[in-house]
Amino acid sequence: MAGNRAVTFMGPRKVEVKSYDYPKLVGPKGQKCEHGVIVKLVATNICGSDLHIYRGRFPAPSGTILGHENTGEVVEVGSHVEFIKKGDLVSVPFNVSCGKCRNCKEGHTDTCMNANDEMDCAAYGFNLGGWQGGQAEYMMVPWADFQLLAFPDKDQAMEKIRDLTLLSDILPTGFHGCYTAGVRPGSTVYIAGAGPVGRCAAASAHLLGASAIIVGDSNQERLALVKKAGYQTVDTSKLDPVADQIEAILGVREVDAGVDAVGWECHGQGPDAPEEPTAVLNTLFQVVRANGGMGIPGIYARGDPEARNEAEKQGKYALAIGQAWIKSPHLTAGQCPVMHYHRELMMAILQDRMPYLTPLLNTQFISLDEVPEAYRKFDAGAPVKYVIDPHGSIKTAA
Amino acid sequence: MAGNRAVTFMGPRKVEVKSYDYPKLVGPKGQKCEHGVIVKLVATNICGSDLHIYRGRFPAPSGTILGHENTGEVVEVGSHVEFIKKGDLVSVPFNVSCGKCRNCKEGHTDTCMNANDEMDCAAYGFNLGGWQGGQAEYMMVPWADFQLLAFPDKDQAMEKIRDLTLLSDILPTGFHGCYTAGVRPGSTVYIAGAGPVGRCAAASAHLLGASAIIVGDSNQERLALVKKAGYQTVDTSKLDPVADQIEAILGVREVDAGVDAVGWECHGQGPDAPEEPTAVLNTLFQVVRANGGMGIPGIYARGDPEARNEAEKQGKYALAIGQAWIKSPHLTAGQCPVMHYHRELMMAILQDRMPYLTPLLNTQFISLDEVPEAYRKFDAGAPVKYVIDPHGSIKTAA
Amino acid sequence: MAGNRAVTFMGPRKVEVKSYDYPKLVGPKGQKCEHGVIVKLVATNICGSDLHIYRGRFPAPSGTILGHENTGEVVEVGSHVEFIKKGDLVSVPFNVSCGKCRNCKEGHTDTCMNANDEMDCAAYGFNLGGWQGGQAEYMMVPWADFQLLAFPDKDQAMEKIRDLTLLSDILPTGFHGCYTAGVRPGSTVYIAGAGPVGRCAAASAHLLGASAIIVGDSNQERLALVKKAGYQTVDTSKLDPVADQIEAILGVREVDAGVDAVGWECHGQGPDAPEEPTAVLNTLFQVVRANGGMGIPGIYARGDPEARNEAEKQGKYALAIGQAWIKSPHLTAGQCPVMHYHRELMMAILQDRMPYLTPLLNTQFISLDEVPEAYRKFDAGAPVKYVIDPHGSIKTAA
Amino acid sequence: MAGNRAVTFMGPRKVEVKSYDYPKLVGPKGQKCEHGVIVKLVATNICGSDLHIYRGRFPAPSGTILGHENTGEVVEVGSHVEFIKKGDLVSVPFNVSCGKCRNCKEGHTDTCMNANDEMDCAAYGFNLGGWQGGQAEYMMVPWADFQLLAFPDKDQAMEKIRDLTLLSDILPTGFHGCYTAGVRPGSTVYIAGAGPVGRCAAASAHLLGASAIIVGDSNQERLALVKKAGYQTVDTSKLDPVADQIEAILGVREVDAGVDAVGWECHGQGPDAPEEPTAVLNTLFQVVRANGGMGIPGIYARGDPEARNEAEKQGKYALAIGQAWIKSPHLTAGQCPVMHYHRELMMAILQDRMPYLTPLLNTQFISLDEVPEAYRKFDAGAPVKYVIDPHGSIKTAA
Repeated sequence: MAGNRAVTFMGPRKVEVKSYDYPKLVGPKGQKCEHGVIVKLVATNICGSDLHIYRGRFPAPSGTILGHENTGEVVEVGSHVEFIKKGDLVSVPFNVSCGKCRNCKEGHTDTCMNANDEMDCAAYGFNLGGWQGGQAEYMMVPWADFQLLAFPDKDQAMEKIRDLTLLSDILPTGFHGCYTAGVRPGSTVYIAGAGPVGRCAAASAHLLGASAIIVGDSNQERLALVKKAGYQTVDTSKLDPVADQIEAILGVREVDAGVDAVGWECHGQGPDAPEEPTAVLNTLFQVVRANGGMGIPGIYARGDPEARNEAEKQGKYALAIGQAWIKSPHLTAGQCPVMHYHRELMMAILQDRMPYLTPLLNTQFISLDEVPEAYRKFDAGAPVKYVIDPHGSIKTAA
Repeated sequence: MAGNRAVTFMGPRKVEVKSYDYPKLVGPKGQKCEHGVIVKLVATNICGSDLHIYRGRFPAPSGTILGHENTGEVVEVGSHVEFIKKGDLVSVPFNVSCGKCRNCKEGHTDTCMNANDEMDCAAYGFNLGGWQGGQAEYMMVPWADFQLLAFPDKDQAMEKIRDLTLLSDILPTGFHGCYTAGVRPGSTVYIAGAGPVGRCAAASAHLLGASAIIVGDSNQERLALVKKAGYQTVDTSKLDPVADQIEAILGVREVDAGVDAVGWECHGQGPDAPEEPTAVLNTLFQVVRANGGMGIPGIYARGDPEARNEAEKQGKYALAIGQAWIKSPHLTAGQCPVMHYHRELMMAILQDRMPYLTPLLNTQFISLDEVPEAYRKFDAGAPVKYVIDPHGSIKTAA
Repeated sequence: MAGNRAVTFMGPRKVEVKSYDYPKLVGPKGQKCEHGVIVKLVATNICGSDLHIYRGRFPAPSGTILGHENTGEVVEVGSHVEFIKKGDLVSVPFNVSCGKCRNCKEGHTDTCMNANDEMDCAAYGFNLGGWQGGQAEYMMVPWADFQLLAFPDKDQAMEKIRDLTLLSDILPTGFHGCYTAGVRPGSTVYIAGAGPVGRCAAASAHLLGASAIIVGDSNQERLALVKKAGYQTVDTSKLDPVADQIEAILGVREVDAGVDAVGWECHGQGPDAPEEPTAVLNTLFQVVRANGGMGIPGIYARGDPEARNEAEKQGKYALAIGQAWIKSPHLTAGQCPVMHYHRELMMAILQDRMPYLTPLLNTQFISLDEVPEAYRKFDAGAPVKYVIDPHGSIKTAA
Repeated sequence: MAGNRAVTFMGPRKVEVKSYDYPKLVGPKGQKCEHGVIVKLVATNICGSDLHIYRGRFPAPSGTILGHENTGEVVEVGSHVEFIKKGDLVSVPFNVSCGKCRNCKEGHTDTCMNANDEMDCAAYGFNLGGWQGGQAEYMMVPWADFQLLAFPDKDQAMEKIRDLTLLSDILPTGFHGCYTAGVRPGSTVYIAGAGPVGRCAAASAHLLGASAIIVGDSNQERLALVKKAGYQTVDTSKLDPVADQIEAILGVREVDAGVDAVGWECHGQGPDAPEEPTAVLNTLFQVVRANGGMGIPGIYARGDPEARNEAEKQGKYALAIGQAWIKSPHLTAGQCPVMHYHRELMMAILQDRMPYLTPLLNTQFISLDEVPEAYRKFDAGAPVKYVIDPHGSIKTAA
């Protein structure tokens, strides 16, 4: 039987491809997972969240196999599995969820109560429950019947794999940001961040029928992708306040909805602005109109070792709630429950309703050996979505 | 002061353009309407609902001025009006609504309790409260501050008048059908009827992010417009059951949501099928999947003088609720509360998010004198949306 | 090992308690159900739906073990079960649902796609998938981790078993009727039917904060229970139209929301009125106000052998949609997805928020041997909820 | 014509009853308000928000007439008013709203765009638009047709005036806190603050069907009212963490929903704990469970002259979003749009569905002359709701 090569976090800014045994139907604490399957990875993406770990800002043990954006073929099926079959091409939601606890039953697979002993939240390749990641040749996925989204037609899926690989995390995550912010037909929306999640949020806003879609970032190459897709941009490397830049576009200083696609590692405004963890949220409090919503899929951490002060080390950030209160704002933070959205988004992709996704994402397929270099480039702001093709399956299909 | 020329219903299949006095700020019962304005019509459309009257199926008194899809310039402002100004270019929702009753306050402007003494529902140019229609040079619109949607920029609006003229009724109506049927990103939807409302429903489904959009009709020219826009079609002039035709498209026999854009004057299936008032609803009960929704903006009448039997004359139709009950269906019928949607849809149009609208509708501008001929053609199934340009304003602007 | 005694449908108006083997972890088609458990019944209720079968109106094969309202103790656990434990006291939702199909994942456990080969809907003790009922000493429950609601404290639960036994069907069903009809704080609601489901709907309306709760029936003893609980009544054995009776109570002729807690075996109005399957729905179309909602948990059948005419035999009923259309009604029909509500309703009971439930229901505990007599009395309209205590566990606890 | 006596803010901790001219149908900028009415106050309450002004923490100009919780009889009607009539007994929502702007039409009367030039929010007797308050004999209410809730029967209303007087602000405000926090049947809820708004929130949670209702405060007399009503309490004058106290009640450390009925002038925990503006919000971030909601009707200020530091002076507070993010929280802050709820809550009161309201509130009627003393006592924490009866109308009726 084959072994397994996998991208391994070895410490801040250090990832290596290491060799492991082929995975077993066994969980992080050695428990049997006969409800699980082994997936042969076809496409496994590098995510902005991986960079939090890569930079040492989101503590994870050395030796963690990274990768929570996984798509692949089922090659082994546990004895308790009823419906998923060997050979299925599946999208694996990044959240690990049992399908049997109160939260899962209520649709909140982002906060499964059974997949992580330490808290009600689990994910692959993260420090959340110990489930190994999928930036690898193979991975184990528990509770397969509940969790996996099987594509209806494998050939069709391989043709659209460039877009479908986004279903495991960032497309639903961007969508969740828009959805919880209340984006609907006709909405004007400001999305902070033109990284892959921000660009997926822009595509989601488009699918949701938004009118003006405005994306802010200081990275000019990423902004260029946004403009090319027909959306509008705010350049946060300029000193002009975001509200001024929005006014220049819309004629008014506020939008209906705001999405934070950055998180706490964001920067203040202007050229070479330093990190300023409250910059995005406090900007949203300003530029989202009365009764508007904010979706916050961008991560806010507690326990960042590089936080500026004691309050931020404890996860407390100076938010402008006193400025915004009179505007009756509402906000939703946290991880996306991928299962809530992935089937619908798959349907939109399969029926060709998101032609804007491919150019916006600017996906580049790489081999496992190219991964360490890709982390470096992505960390430096490359306007690219890196997708690993560990077995060359996509290359072959193309 | 000018007089007023207006399209007048003179009896079944008989409309004439007649001359009247210039309208006053006075309501149908002679009451003063200082909260109203006089609108000089820029675009006033012929609607499928007008045909119900035209055919004598929806009883209306001879002498009724037709026209409930109105857009124009405010030329006179009542003394109680606070915000709408002379010169504003406005879209007039087809529902007449006061903004002060319980229903209006709850957003249900389709069932205003103050605009019609006989029932909680009023409209212009219909037998609903006596408000005169706008297929004319001028019309009076009461409760102007509450009702009217003023376009932010007149020049921009005149450039997009072809699409914006749809905001007074059929675009919101098609949208309402989809929205109440539960259409959302990824949904598959079957829309019964490829007339202007059905085509607007298809465009609305697109804006809402639907995946497969399937429109059924027996009119080949209307189906051709739908196909050209990139949607799929069911041909009800064939005997193949709708579910079979859907299966040929989707691989499954049911859709997530269904919209009735026809109403009770629908026909059974097959070539030259006769009228069969339950055909659309009972088809929807069949082809909408478990827990799916049905939106029914198509009108169901009570009191149709040509109804087939006593039950139908009383507005009772043999619906297959006993077949559908086990599938847990939900449905919403009735008129669209235009105000609930028009601002958002205007934003989508102004920001160029509905490029599919213009080709789908195939709008033809006509003068007042061409109206009687247009009614004849539209009644015969012309694949066109007729928009009256009473003052030649659109012609001039173009 | 013990055998099993169970209430068996032997043909119209004929139920017998027969002896069977102790159940195995095996499904209706002989498939292994290691995800299942064996439940020792503590409380298993006779439901109005059982009467449809009992009367021969809802066709079921002779030999069917009846009973879909089941509560009991887990006495055997399949090898795939992870979280439910032997000894748990559990409520069994009447719908059989896998937790893994699209519908279950979306919360629609009433239309599970895996539990019944013939349609997307399954239930115990019904002609829906072949799952044996629980009016017995023991029963098998598949997909136990997903389906079962375990009470947090057994002793506390036994003290409140009289109310908690309603969680398997009729309390959630009545609640679903109100919820889908849009009942919320301050609503006025008309509930057609004062049987156990109607009385549970009244209690649910109370919990939901409804203002006026009006229940209609022709059975005076059942109406007496409703009045004693502090609600208002409409007497359908009188000829006064329901709208008149509502006006006498409320001062207006319409309510905000309507619930059909009867179904197609309803009767027309007046003393000794005959069956009139559209009586309830067409009354609701009349008395529910503009934009109001109707919840229809009452069953509408296709294939009733005693239906009056061909249309009704096919499940087509002459509904007054043409009268109601102008009022913009919405309605939701079908079975209740019990899991959507049972945990919340359990919490309300355990925290003593529904003191009105016990007197409203007028529950009578009976032994298995008393069941045939109870069916006869219940069919005759006894103002009682019959709950079977097959092992005398409740009697002992009391 | 009569003059007007009114409660006037003269500076921190200084209110006086002063004499004024009888009010005219004129707004704060001298504009005519023929859409307005003059209300003779029957019941006008002192609110916790008045204390923010009274203490000098929420800056208001000296000479402001206080009072935003107003109920009274219409004694004069402007010429543009169509439906409200002289003699109507009405509840006046505390928000001033025009009924014609986008926000009002969308139901967000808390952020009317026309009633205050400086921001999209207006209220009587506050520093929000300059509208004079109603702690007086008479007041002017603009946009009367849109704003006012007329009681259906004056005699019945006078009998229930003790509860109905809460409809102008605190009952809808407490309800809004619960509603936006997601309280629904079966929810467990923690309400921070046992002042009148917190007690109204508890009553609202009850009406909404909540199971466990837990209210926290350090004021023992207010907690006693809560306990007497059958709810549970957390004593924040003890050092035991709120989560510990909740666990002692529920067996778990978290609730489904949290309401902040205090705002930024809250205190930390323990005996004699000092002000700690983030205490309530950061406690809610802790004790609200995953995917739970927080409703924040408690005010957060910008510009409090007594704020502890520069950040708080600017309205920035150190919130534990980094601790809570992983739990996927959602929150809604701001003023209650009273009109969204008042009719429904009136119905619940008129139909006797809130018998718990009277004992919970412990209302005391006072004359205008007793107002200064009442402000002193209320500021000191009196477990009372003070309602002014300026004309002795309630006294007379009783």
